[in-house]
Amino acid sequence: MPAKTKGTNAERELVHKFWSTGWTAMRAAGSGCIKYPCPDLLVGNLNANKGKGRKLAIECKATKAIKQYLTKKEVDELQEFCRVFGAEPWIGVRFDKLDWYFLMLEDLQKTEGENYAVDIALAKRKGLLFEELII
Amino acid sequence: MPAKTKGTNAERELVHKFWSTGWTAMRAAGSGCIKYPCPDLLVGNLNANKGKGRKLAIECKATKAIKQYLTKKEVDELQEFCRVFGAEPWIGVRFDKLDWYFLMLEDLQKTEGENYAVDIALAKRKGLLFEELII
Repeated sequence: MPAKTKGTNAERELVHKFWSTGWTAMRAAGSGCIKYPCPDLLVGNLNANKGKGRKLAIECKATKAIKQYLTKKEVDELQEFCRVFGAEPWIGVRFDKLDWYFLMLEDLQKTEGENYAVDIALAKRKGLLFEELII
Repeated sequence: MPAKTKGTNAERELVHKFWSTGWTAMRAAGSGCIKYPCPDLLVGNLNANKGKGRKLAIECKATKAIKQYLTKKEVDELQEFCRVFGAEPWIGVRFDKLDWYFLMLEDLQKTEGENYAVDIALAKRKGLLFEELII
């Protein structure tokens, strides 16, 4: 399966998971967002957080590798979007045959080139499972 | 220009307008949202509303006609999305050679078939211009 199709399918799977647990989820259009920071998914639920509501902007990655890299630009743009919009920034990673893990930006590993990475061990140690994320 | 291209271009134009005034704007993916309610645009600005923040979910329509129809389903789904996500529902209409007008759902005209409509006269009387919307 091409990487792009794989990514789109993975995002759609997450969209279903959010809607099935009472959240709204919206996937970003691939084009037209290019000039501007834009998360892959924007999800929200006014009933979460004891009725205070939560909104999460999620950058999604599905990979066959054991380590997923993120560019500094991707992480900075996610942070910028969240700062202006008012949402929590999250990285969602799904390694083959594993569940989704959701990481906070501060828990990503910094690479030498000023970029970021998350491997399976880090995802398991620091990441939240879907059920833990939506509490 | 095909209606779909026209609609996409109109949405992109709005995305630019929001970003250029300090808002974030996100266009929904055309596919993958089909099963679920999903606005065309989701925009937000934590600094709006005297720092309390605002989030708007906008259904966008660009038309050559003098009257734009909306189905009951479109309007109901926008309202449902907004109720769960926590956003204000708006209808954005751009008639040929005119500016965008933004209408609240309660200001739409009800048609006999339980659907909704907005013509140029109603848009001018009840609609907000972009500059008025983002205050």
